[in-house]
Formats: sequence, structure tokens, C-alpha cells
Amino acid sequence: MSFAEFALIDRIRARSKGRDDIVLGIGDDAALLQPLAGHWLAVTADTLNSGVHFPPETMPADIGWKTLAVNLSDLAAMGATPAWGTLALSLPEASEEWIDAFADGFFALADAHGWRLIGGDTTRGPLSLSVTAFGQVPHGQALRRDGAQVGDDIWVSGTLGDAAAALHLWQRGELDVTAVAQDADREFLRQRLLRPTPRVALGLALSGLATAAVDVSDGLLADIGHIAARSSLRACVEPDRLPLSPALQRTMTLERARSSALAGGDDYELCFCAPAANSSRLHAVAEQLGTPLTRIGGMVDGAGVDCPGMPVAQGYVHFSNAHAQGVQR
Amino acid sequence: MSFAEFALIDRIRARSKGRDDIVLGIGDDAALLQPLAGHWLAVTADTLNSGVHFPPETMPADIGWKTLAVNLSDLAAMGATPAWGTLALSLPEASEEWIDAFADGFFALADAHGWRLIGGDTTRGPLSLSVTAFGQVPHGQALRRDGAQVGDDIWVSGTLGDAAAALHLWQRGELDVTAVAQDADREFLRQRLLRPTPRVALGLALSGLATAAVDVSDGLLADIGHIAARSSLRACVEPDRLPLSPALQRTMTLERARSSALAGGDDYELCFCAPAANSSRLHAVAEQLGTPLTRIGGMVDGAGVDCPGMPVAQGYVHFSNAHAQGVQR
Repeated sequence: MSFAEFALIDRIRARSKGRDDIVLGIGDDAALLQPLAGHWLAVTADTLNSGVHFPPETMPADIGWKTLAVNLSDLAAMGATPAWGTLALSLPEASEEWIDAFADGFFALADAHGWRLIGGDTTRGPLSLSVTAFGQVPHGQALRRDGAQVGDDIWVSGTLGDAAAALHLWQRGELDVTAVAQDADREFLRQRLLRPTPRVALGLALSGLATAAVDVSDGLLADIGHIAARSSLRACVEPDRLPLSPALQRTMTLERARSSALAGGDDYELCFCAPAANSSRLHAVAEQLGTPLTRIGGMVDGAGVDCPGMPVAQGYVHFSNAHAQGVQR
Repeated sequence: MSFAEFALIDRIRARSKGRDDIVLGIGDDAALLQPLAGHWLAVTADTLNSGVHFPPETMPADIGWKTLAVNLSDLAAMGATPAWGTLALSLPEASEEWIDAFADGFFALADAHGWRLIGGDTTRGPLSLSVTAFGQVPHGQALRRDGAQVGDDIWVSGTLGDAAAALHLWQRGELDVTAVAQDADREFLRQRLLRPTPRVALGLALSGLATAAVDVSDGLLADIGHIAARSSLRACVEPDRLPLSPALQRTMTLERARSSALAGGDDYELCFCAPAANSSRLHAVAEQLGTPLTRIGGMVDGAGVDCPGMPVAQGYVHFSNAHAQGVQR
């Protein structure tokens, strides 16, 4: 092992904090953890590749934040409390400056959620970041995709389409992802792309209220489609109910904004189903957490996704959708 | 998500078997697992990149085997029983043929150990494979690196230096890693490079017998050096005791063979420390498992690694050592 890699690993290790349930952290053949009794372990894995999942010039601190955010978002969608995880990092060249900046973003989010890095690997290669994140959820309280019932309302948190709009602006050369935008709306959209908020507290609050949940990473229609498929139902989305941010509405036409909200990915909001009887309790959750929740449709018998009057163009593919598209963009 | 990726994921999912402790497998935002009571969770993560950790022309089935083997080897070195894990796969292009062949090697080893794939990600990018593997070990029975005592013997399983020798032959254009070698010795060495055997049963058997353990992935001197450092002792290795395979001895001079055994990586044997009083029980374990165990030295007061008469050249760097060297080969 070269001194260069030792130095990088040491820099990451120095940022990794302990927890009472970490029996042995980074530095042996494997870490040793003490899982909570009466809980399931929730495990998710997501990879971000430079040029596929983020613009190559993205600042390392933003890459660090987003690498962990997309994984914590999956745990949130299961109603799990983030616990620990691993990071596999491929870097074209050893750079302590890059690692330090990356760690700034990564551990800012990790520390905010008490999530601890307990292992990983640093290798030479094209820039690529894979996190496997573990969370814990009490027996029987996980939010799955297959529990939606006929008559359930469909809800979504926050606003949709902002990240895809920022990417659209970047693709047109109208947004610099590496610098604060002068225009407040553009800066808002830029932050939504680079620093998504995993809805962890919301996921926990939805236990007992929601029948099914998914995070909006591939685009709303694709993700509610997963719930529809796994629940053997049809999802009906009402486009005029979509929560659109003022910044998004001021940046593009209503039609484009809705299209962005429906097909754009990278929002990392939660989309979930709940019986109508839970509406008032959901409004209370929204108020308590300061996280807007919007009812955007309902589940009916059938299959697939229905979104009247909004035939989303088949070819409307965002850069961000490459995350979902994977090997064949 | 494109159809291409769906097809790839479906092909992998079809090969993933269930287990009673998998509450929810691949297909939701996260998998749900039920850890064993009274056990710690052992977690390790290793990445293999094409051209860095294996020759670019390596057959996909061999890549599949080795991707999992290097991770199960880490679990073996902790004395943990393999349970589940995730795979992050970056592929330059969608190829069902490649995925099927990769899965042949990957799941052959997974199934042999009852290890189950419970999540992952397939993305477009330069060929790279990251596994995070979980195992389980009863409370207090893990094999760590920091438990070696003064007077302990140092042991190693199997033979050392074979994989590095195969890589050496490949680098000189004298071995084709994609085809069975005509010469039996070369074929033995080729198999040792491409299809390492994680010493899982041995790791389990060492519980209560060994005071510290590590797997030999970076080269014996480097890896016993980890035990020495973590145990605050000095490791004395006797070069004439190194277990060298007949194939290795017939392929190169004794000096080169010993150098390969000391500095070559990718052996994935276990190196461990144990009190002299446990020797006869260790010989019994070796006989029971059919896995040779060789005493190669002992632990003394001090620091570092001592290997009399064998000044391993500083510049003796194998391709395989790139695994350890990481970003700066």
C-alpha cells in the first residue's frame, strides 16, 4: 500500500466518528456492529459516476453531500433510521485537497443524521462513488412499495422538478454548477440539484400513516409507477396539483415546469400513499416538520400510471435521468 | 430507467436466492434483513477496477468469482459467517452475455457459502465492481488484528506467492489469463490468481484458537505488518518456512519464489497468530479441513516486521499490489 493511499484513508478515517453500537470501526478486515434488537436492518446501495450522475466539474463538497444524500433518501423511503455504511471511492489521482473537500460535504450530512462511515475502499480509477447505507427500522414498521390500497391518496413532499430544471439550465450553458448564481431563483434550483435533502424525519413520521412509499429519484411518474406495479394498482396523478416551487415557475413555462416535475429525476422527495382518513394527521406532520406535503392523486384498480392531459414526451430525457438509465443513457 | 438496465437487473435478480432472514430482497428502496440475536455484524467493502485489480481481458466469470472472493476473504479473516451483501456494478455498455457470464462466477461462490445478494446498482461507466459484504459472528468471537501476544506463533494457510507469480508471467506475456494453460504448473498458478479460495471454514475454526488474524491480500509482509502495528508487537518471519507450492518452485528460482510469497498480493490465505499451546489443535483443524497450515514465525516485543536474510526490494511491485496501492500505483 502506498503512502498516498494511507494518507487519503487516514484523512477520511479522521473524520469518521464513533457510536456506541460500533464495536470496531475502520482499520481491520471488517467493521463490527451491534444491530438493535427488535429491528430489521434496511440496506441500500447507490453509485454516482462523474459525467453520468453529476456534471464532471461539480465541486467535491457537493459530490460528497449528494453521494450520501441519495442513499439516505432510500433509507428515508423505507422509514428507517440511518445508522452506518461504507464508501467505495475511485479517484483518478491522489489528492488530499479533493478528499478534504469531498469529506466536508459528505460528513456534514452524515453528522446531521448520526450516520457513521465504518468501512470502504479507495482505489485508483475514473471518479466513481458507491455507498452502501444501513438503517434500522422496528419490526413491521417499514414503508414498502407494495402496500398501497385502492382509494389511497398519493402524496408528495416538498416541490418537484427543481433539480431537473437546474440540470436543464446547466446543459444550455445558463448555469454554472461550481459557483453561487447571482439570480436567487437560479441559486435555489442549483442548490436543489447539488444539495438534495433526504426526508429522513418524514420517513420516520410516516410509519403507521402511509401504506407505501418511494423516493423520487428517477422522476415522479417512474417512481409512483414502482408503487403501482408492486401494489398491483393504477396510480392517477393530477398534474394541476403538482407542487412547483416559485423559482421553477418563474424560470420556465407551466407546461415545461410540470414536465420537469413529472419526468425529471434527482428530487429526492418522498412520494407515498395513505388512506384519506389520515389526511389531517398528515397535515399535522407537515406542520410539525416544516415539510410541505401535497396530495397529487389517488390509487385505483388497474395497472400503470395515469396523468390526464400530460402526455410526457417519450424523448424527454434529463441528464439526471442517467442515474436511472444506468448503462444505456 | 431504460429497458436495457431493467433487463440487466432482472438477470441478476433472477440469480439471487432467498434466505429466511431476508424479509425483503431486491426491488424496493432498500432490502430488509433480520440479523441474528447475540451476534455482531461484520461489514467489509472492496472494489475491483479493470486494469488496476485484474488484467482488462480477464473473463467475466473469473471477474465475478474474484469480486466476491476478496470480500468473503475479509469476512473469513474476522471469523464471520458470510450472510448477505450488495454489488455496485459499472459497465461500459449493456451486455446480457457479459452479465450472465459474470453472474456464473459470482453466484457459484455466493451459493457455495449461502451468501445472498440483497441489493445494488448497475450504472454506465468504466468497468468497476464494488461489493459490500456482511457476515455475522457471535459476540466476543471475532478475529481482530489487535490481539496478538508476545510469544505467539505466526501461521499461514495454503501456499503463498502463486497469484503474484501468475501475474508476473502474464506481465511478461508468458500466460494467457483467458484460456486454460497447457502446462499444469502454469494452469495451477493461473487458477490461484483468478479463482482464489476465501478461507471461510478456517476463519470459523480459528475462533478460540487464534489471537489475531488478517487475510493476505496486499502481500504477507504488509499484512502481518498490520497485525504487528495493531498489536504493538514485532513480527518475525522465517523465510525458509514459507509454504511454497511445487508449481511455484518449479516456475522460478527459490529466491524469486520467496520474494513472491513475501511481497506478492492476491493470495487470500489467512495469516494468524496463536499461542504455542494451540499447535496440536491447529494441526487437527488443518487435517479436518484439508487446508494446510504452516508456522512461519513468531511475535516478539518491538515494532515492525523482521524477515532475516530477505531484504525484499523496495521496488518489487506487482500489478496485484495495485489493489493495495490504490490511487497511486
